[in-house]
Amino acid sequence: MSRSMHIEPGALLGQRIVEAPVWRVNGSVPYEEADLIAVEEPLEIRLGYVDAGTRLVRPISVTMRTPGHDVELAVGFLFTEGIIKDFGDVDRIRHTGPTGGKKNNRNVVTVTLKPGVTFDAGRLERHFYTASSCGVCGKTSLDALEMAACPSLPDNQPMLTAEVIHRLPEALLEAQAVFEHTGGLHAAALVDAGGRLLATREDVGRHNAVDKLIGAHVLERRLPLHAGILLVSGRASFELTQKALMAEIPVLAAVGAPSSLAVELAERFGMTLLGFVRNSRFNVYSGSNRVRDLKGSTNGQQQV
Amino acid sequence: MSRSMHIEPGALLGQRIVEAPVWRVNGSVPYEEADLIAVEEPLEIRLGYVDAGTRLVRPISVTMRTPGHDVELAVGFLFTEGIIKDFGDVDRIRHTGPTGGKKNNRNVVTVTLKPGVTFDAGRLERHFYTASSCGVCGKTSLDALEMAACPSLPDNQPMLTAEVIHRLPEALLEAQAVFEHTGGLHAAALVDAGGRLLATREDVGRHNAVDKLIGAHVLERRLPLHAGILLVSGRASFELTQKALMAEIPVLAAVGAPSSLAVELAERFGMTLLGFVRNSRFNVYSGSNRVRDLKGSTNGQQQV
Repeated sequence: MSRSMHIEPGALLGQRIVEAPVWRVNGSVPYEEADLIAVEEPLEIRLGYVDAGTRLVRPISVTMRTPGHDVELAVGFLFTEGIIKDFGDVDRIRHTGPTGGKKNNRNVVTVTLKPGVTFDAGRLERHFYTASSCGVCGKTSLDALEMAACPSLPDNQPMLTAEVIHRLPEALLEAQAVFEHTGGLHAAALVDAGGRLLATREDVGRHNAVDKLIGAHVLERRLPLHAGILLVSGRASFELTQKALMAEIPVLAAVGAPSSLAVELAERFGMTLLGFVRNSRFNVYSGSNRVRDLKGSTNGQQQV
Repeated sequence: MSRSMHIEPGALLGQRIVEAPVWRVNGSVPYEEADLIAVEEPLEIRLGYVDAGTRLVRPISVTMRTPGHDVELAVGFLFTEGIIKDFGDVDRIRHTGPTGGKKNNRNVVTVTLKPGVTFDAGRLERHFYTASSCGVCGKTSLDALEMAACPSLPDNQPMLTAEVIHRLPEALLEAQAVFEHTGGLHAAALVDAGGRLLATREDVGRHNAVDKLIGAHVLERRLPLHAGILLVSGRASFELTQKALMAEIPVLAAVGAPSSLAVELAERFGMTLLGFVRNSRFNVYSGSNRVRDLKGSTNGQQQV
């Protein structure tokens, strides 16, 4: 067996997993075996627009993602970053995939705005000096969200029971086809108040899985998602909370821990934030008004 | 008990954890309790330099990080991104912390280069349209690394035994003081070939934990780290593998799964990549020449 992956870039495109040889060591016994590995590849998102009569195309972001649902990812990213407000802003989308274009144009999605649609270039500028896990600067973004008054979550809706919340990880696991094989993909799922799985997406990056999920609903013009619960594998960061808020999803449930800024953001906007949702346990960090039988709580009130 | 966190930004600065009230639900029994939450806050990294006789300061990155070791984070980031080649490039570092400067200057580290030190502005430009988990575009970066011929890993060194590798998660857990409390922090550790823990850092972002760890060694002028093993909680992405390579760390061990691009990068540069290092098991994805008793393997040979 060849010990090299010899991954041809072209061979990976559109694939979510790839097979590669590994040495497995269990105790002191090594053996060779084929393993399934989650695919990670760069996707460049470009924005087309008209400025003073001139057609322009501007690179917006390069994200390391798992191929698949690329158009949803691009649209979801532009929506959660506040560049487009809905699908009505979009004139056309071009995905240069495995069979199209020059080599360096592979893995590019260009979203072109309708003539007359403007966007806040300042938002782009802020991203231009931004790297790492978060696409936004926390404090600045909190202020920007408040000023824009974008997110408006329905009071006390949806109402959840502990029983439904306990069943969420099971729903996520059932949907995580690839994750089971590789252990390398994060999952995001949209669930209704009865615990029914509405949609799910997977990616090496949690933020990408969430953008794909939200992007799918932007494309179908099904926002805001006031009846939904966003369920994510892993932790709840500021970034994921911000994305849920942009789609007006009132409940964010994470299998892992939340960060301080995620809790702060959820509190400020009256979002219900659940953490450590696993093994018939969970914690409510904010918005307990949407969980039945948590009495006497003032949590979830917006701070004024 | 107040149900709001009422986190004052100033109160958080320099703290890694914060206490907040939560509802805990175990089965159907809810109870209120104080919980410890990992702190997430934005840090802006700025670069000071002289261009055509003019002193300039340019914002480079805003990263969501856990406060602490901020100077190491800034220096490690600039090093792993190829902006500085060693600490000799740095004239001075200014950290505007909790007690200094205007409110919006909090959480800023400015690294000023020595007069005459130049950097590749193109690297910055690429980052300027970069967001999400990865600070770099995969393919471009692979090419750039090869052209710069930066990473030069020692052949067959260090040599590891399965016994040492099996003990790595234990070493990480012992070092993860905060993680035990909150479950919300990633950890990165540098370990020698005998399994001795040399240094460890924690952060809400894995990439930040690794930058802090590498930055500490840049500041102490102790690079390259040819004798080291980099151990990370969570998964091995392209980004983490790239950072390890910049510091010339020959072995990357992850508690979780690697991505396809991480394996590809490790193979190309002859790095040993270990995944799923837990419960007395691990997988060797590349560079098995550094693990004793894995015979007959050609893995780890550099592809030419």
